[in-house]
Order: sequence, then structure tokens, then C-alpha cells
Amino acid sequence: MQELLVASDLDALLVVANSARDPDLAPFVGSAHLGESLLVVPRVGAVQLGFWSPMERDEAASTGLELLSPEVLEIGRWARELLAAESMLARVLATALQKLAPRSRVALAGHPAAGTLHQACQRLGGEGWRFVDGSGLLRRARKKKSEDEIEAIRLAASGTVEAMRRVAELLAAATADHAGELWMHGERLRVARLRAEIAQVFARYGLEQPEGNLLACAGDAGVPHNQGSNERVVRHCEAVLVDLFPKGRLFADCTRTFCVGQPAESLLRAHATVLATLREAHAQTRAGVRGWDLQEQTCATFDAAGYATPLTSPGTTVGYVHGLGHGVGYELHEEPSFRKEAGGEGTFEVGDVLTLEPGLYDPNPQGGYGIRLEDLVWLGPDGAESLTPLPYDLDPKSW
Amino acid sequence: MQELLVASDLDALLVVANSARDPDLAPFVGSAHLGESLLVVPRVGAVQLGFWSPMERDEAASTGLELLSPEVLEIGRWARELLAAESMLARVLATALQKLAPRSRVALAGHPAAGTLHQACQRLGGEGWRFVDGSGLLRRARKKKSEDEIEAIRLAASGTVEAMRRVAELLAAATADHAGELWMHGERLRVARLRAEIAQVFARYGLEQPEGNLLACAGDAGVPHNQGSNERVVRHCEAVLVDLFPKGRLFADCTRTFCVGQPAESLLRAHATVLATLREAHAQTRAGVRGWDLQEQTCATFDAAGYATPLTSPGTTVGYVHGLGHGVGYELHEEPSFRKEAGGEGTFEVGDVLTLEPGLYDPNPQGGYGIRLEDLVWLGPDGAESLTPLPYDLDPKSW
Repeated sequence: MQELLVASDLDALLVVANSARDPDLAPFVGSAHLGESLLVVPRVGAVQLGFWSPMERDEAASTGLELLSPEVLEIGRWARELLAAESMLARVLATALQKLAPRSRVALAGHPAAGTLHQACQRLGGEGWRFVDGSGLLRRARKKKSEDEIEAIRLAASGTVEAMRRVAELLAAATADHAGELWMHGERLRVARLRAEIAQVFARYGLEQPEGNLLACAGDAGVPHNQGSNERVVRHCEAVLVDLFPKGRLFADCTRTFCVGQPAESLLRAHATVLATLREAHAQTRAGVRGWDLQEQTCATFDAAGYATPLTSPGTTVGYVHGLGHGVGYELHEEPSFRKEAGGEGTFEVGDVLTLEPGLYDPNPQGGYGIRLEDLVWLGPDGAESLTPLPYDLDPKSW
Repeated sequence: MQELLVASDLDALLVVANSARDPDLAPFVGSAHLGESLLVVPRVGAVQLGFWSPMERDEAASTGLELLSPEVLEIGRWARELLAAESMLARVLATALQKLAPRSRVALAGHPAAGTLHQACQRLGGEGWRFVDGSGLLRRARKKKSEDEIEAIRLAASGTVEAMRRVAELLAAATADHAGELWMHGERLRVARLRAEIAQVFARYGLEQPEGNLLACAGDAGVPHNQGSNERVVRHCEAVLVDLFPKGRLFADCTRTFCVGQPAESLLRAHATVLATLREAHAQTRAGVRGWDLQEQTCATFDAAGYATPLTSPGTTVGYVHGLGHGVGYELHEEPSFRKEAGGEGTFEVGDVLTLEPGLYDPNPQGGYGIRLEDLVWLGPDGAESLTPLPYDLDPKSW
């Protein structure tokens, strides 16, 4: 981080956070339990962690960072003086930054309350501080994962693999009635039941789903981010798209698509095409490749198979309608970027963790479907490794 | 909300969020699944929801709000024109706000990336927009819970009650060895095991723990926000403080303290005193009361029993060392406030949900303890109701 500050001609990084789980703070403080807090990374010298509550003093100490205690930050004094939240934050930040030279350039990050932060920084701007956006800097620093981070992603991926197998097991055991609805243990098999089983598996792995999950059927799955209704009964012969992205310290991300019973010809063909593009993408994924190049190749393959793509039909909602993947880390969407416009952050490097997730969609309420197959890939020193080694079959009985 | 805007002489509320789970956005959009998004509440007229991804169009539509689609916000155009994140956000916000009169006063809220937002708003400030902190406005609007919100808090509280009973059950079933360590099923009973059981219960209720939990023993519990180490083996005759605060749509919050085996006299006396103060606080909790008045009364009772308090010994880390409670809602700490300095937000009203949580602490590594008993209370139209009706006993065998 300090090298990045020098390279960007910045004097410090300032993270302002409501919790140690803020993705901009978490990489620095591990599993410490903190509420309102801040971090100062100066260009030279020790990283400092500030925290508001004296009750968090041993949590803060567990990080091993140099501490700016609530007493140093005068939290109690500003509260007694009845300062408005923005004035209090301005005073706290000024104290935390006071060792820097006047007119220092500070990269600002974290996810505190927007209005309070904006007002506080405007006030400090009037006192000579210069703030620039620190988001890009942190994303660059987080692109290459450490061994610890890879272990955390592996754990999240393992839970995801087990949860997906549990979904396959339930779907394989369900039976369809004459109307095509699936049943299990004398009850209709609803999306809520699958979600409950997934949550149980994740709880065993110490994982949660801060961004939820997607469990959408038929035409609903035809809109890629439709989360699917809990009340929906899963049906025979329809596409069931399951996209799981739980988080421990870091996220994992994986999608499979199922079909109980004989799929329509269109579904079979779409599935086979998506799987072919995913295999192509896996084969090409290595350091030095640009995500956008893989996206172009994926579009070419879909186009050759007769499906619309964002390249041939910009804005299409039928066919292949999104990007091929994204980096994964403390946030669900990180670098590397797969966008055409990406600069250096669009090139794969050793240490990256990213998704490959081609899909085909038809959002028509009658006969529509969504198919997506998504793997999580780590570019390790020995090449690419899928962290989600699962079958790709539509038929859960083949799992 | 619109009445509050008029009363505060504001033209609009603007929420900028990375997710529909942002506590400033969630009350407006229910359970819709959204990533980067914004909300405009004008002083007069329809509330508008803007969203970045066309793949979220049916999730956005499910809110019933007037929509600012990615096409209207020109998300694709700004991406193609290679705008920096801050410039892109400035253009998107300008489009969302364009119906307002020039030089409108806009209350700003949400928790987007701080640096990006600050830069974008500075730019818009140069174009004549005036931003003020919207946090206080939203907290006021969220203080009184709706029936739906009370149901969501009840659900979270029910899961908390069951999880706490499960902890009691496990502790009651454990046996101590000659060294005082607790055992269960041939293994030492570690904090990690209790956490795993708690997570299983929460998963069944559809709850997660975005802020974690506190499960601290003996002197560790003597620092109120020490979260407790997973590896720690629970011991005979020590205080085991369990503070759970899971979230479904909204949070719940509850603490109990256990002791397996005969507690020391000091622990027994501290527990009895904490329980007495909690009962006093319950008896006084009704509309019109100020949280600070209850805090003063609690301090007086602890003082009379010979314990240090923040009133008699400011900054003490032994005795009663914190406030009596806080409001609970979309955030774990909301209004009503129990602070001395609180204005109107410090007075209880019908519709409030709040905690009462007296405690006594001794952080000494030798013989230290922490005792806290915390209930979650709803001030309904018929008076105060505890949403966490659980025993208070130290001995889990009495539960």
C-alpha cells in the first residue's frame, strides 16, 4: 500500500468505517470486532487504527496496529460539547491526520454515512486538507490475494460446493405431480426450502450471505439478477438457476443450473453452448490475458451458435446479456475487471481470484429460461485452479 | 419523510447505496435485490429509485417505486466514455436530481464509497447543488417502527431467544474436569462450538450476524465489546457473557450471562445487582421517559451498591462502564438515544424499539468478570413489551 501511495503521489490513505467488516478496513484489521473506526496509512511510518469506543480497546489492540484511542481522538469531549455528527467527525479526522504536513493529499476510502463524511471533509478541505478518491488505490492493492486471503476464499468456496451439492440432492429426490410441480416429504418443493437448506450448510462453514443469493426458475431466471421468490414451487422440466455468493472473511461465487425431468430442446442446446464457452474460457485463463479478450471470444462463440450478444446486439435482453466475469475478494465484485475500457486492472495476474460465468437468457414469461454456469478461479503460481469443482449437468440425478 | 423534509426546509433526500441492504435504502425497497442504486425523495411528488444494472430491472420494479433505469441514468454511456468513478457518479446524480430547482438543498444519506461520493458531490456543489447531512433525518424517520418492521424485529428476537436457550442447554449438559474445563461429547467445550450452534439456529430463522456476536468468558467479558476467542475452552465457575444481535430485515439484540457451577460471591452479588437495575429499568420504560433519566437511575442504584459508575467515576473500566441502552432497527444502534446530550431523539415514544442492558465489569485477567443482562423492548400502543422473554439465571440448569 505504501508503494502505491508513493507511485500515486499521495501522502496517506484514510479509511473511515462504521465497522471492521468494511471491505476497505477488513484487510488491515483481520477479525477484530470494531464499530466506528478509522485507519491512516501514511506514505512513511506506522499504520494507525483509530476507534470510537473504549469498550473495543482490546479488539483494537489485537490488530497489532498503532492505536489512536478514543481518548486521543477526544470522542468523549466532542460528544459533551454537543457537536453535530459532521463537526465531530471533522474534529476526529483532523486529530488523526495531524501528523501529516499541511496541504497533504489524502486518498479517502471506507463506507461511512455519506452525508456526514461529505460535510466533514468539506470542512477539512477549507482547512487545507486535499482529499482524492481512494477506491481505485485500494482495489489495486487488493487485486493480488495473500495466502491467508486465498485460504479464506477456499473455505467460502468449499461451503458453496457443499451447498450446491445439497441443492442437487434435494432436486434429485423430488417427485413431480401430474401438474408438473415438484414434491418432497408430502410438501410442494418451494424455493424457500432450498434456501433454508443452503443457509444450514453455510452456517456449518461459518459463512453468511450478506448479498443474499439467486434461486430463480424458468422465465424469472431469464433476468440474470432476479433473486427468485421464496413462495415459488419448483417445476418439472424448467431451468432452475442457483447462484450462491456467501462470505466468510472474503466472498466466493458459483452458479449452476438444474432441470428436473426432460429439458426442452432449446434448453439442452443453450446449456451445451454455455458449457462449451465456459470450457473455452477456462482453457484461456492465465496470467497476462485480458478479461475483455475472453469476453470477445465468448461472444464470438455464442454468435456462431446463433445467439445474440452485447457485441452484435447492444442492449439485448435475450441471448448472452452480460460480462464474462469479475474479480472476487472482500467485495463480491473486485478486480480484475472484464470491461473493454479496463486499463491495467483488466489484465489477469498471478494471485487474482475471478469468476468465469457465461450464460444464456430468455426472459419470456412463457417458455423463458436462464442458464448460467459459473466457476471461481484462482490464478496460482502453478496456473489456474477452479475452486468450485462441481458437475455442470442440468440433471441433478447425474450429480 | 416528506413532512420531515418540509419541517427541515429541505428540497429532497438523496440516498446513494451499494446495495439494497444499506440501512438508509432498505426501508424504502423491502427485500428487492439491488446493487449500486440511489433514491430521491422530493419534498413533493413520487419517490424515485435509480439502479445501475439492467439485470436488476424486475427487482427494481418489485418495489413499486417510480424508476430511473440505467438507460435514463446513462450508465452505459459514462462507462464507454471512460469517466473516472467520481465523474460517473456526479453525472448519474445530476441526472437523478435534474427535476429539482437550481440550488436545491438536498439531504445526503447512504453508505457508498466515501472518496468517490465526496468527490462527486464536491463537483455537483460547484454546479450549484447544496448537500447537507441526511443521517439525522433518516434516523428520526426510522425511530417509530411500522407494523411490518415490528414483525421483522419479532422474528429476529424469536431466533435470538431460541439461540440463547440452545446455549443454556449446551452449558447445562457440559461436565467439568478436575482442572475446571468443560467437556461435551468427549471434547472440550470451546466458544467455537457454541458459535456453531448459534449459527445453526439463526440459519433456521433466516437470520445472519453481520456484526458478529460476543461470547466472552471471565476477564475477557470484563471488556464489554470483547468478542471472545473461538479457541477458548469454557470453564467451571466463570462468567460466560453471550450477546447476540442477529439481523433479518432488521436487528434484534439480547444478552445473558451464565456460570456453570458455583459462582464466586462477587459474581453472585454483581448478578443480583444487575438484575435489580434491569427490573427497575423495565418498570420505568414507557412513552415520555428519557433514556438518560433511566441511565441516571441505574447509576444511582449501582452507586448505592458500591460499584463505580460513569457518573461517579468518569472513564472507569471497573463497575458499570457504559450506557443503559440504545434503539434498534435497520442498524444495531439507532434512536432512541440514551445520551445525556440527546434532544428529542432521547425521549421514548410509542413505536420505539430499544434495549435495556445494565452490566458490571472487572477486566482483571485474574478473577475478572463481565455480567450483562439485556432485553429488547417494544413500546407498543398497550405499553412496553419485552421481545426477549428469557430467564436471567446464571445457572444454565435453572433455565
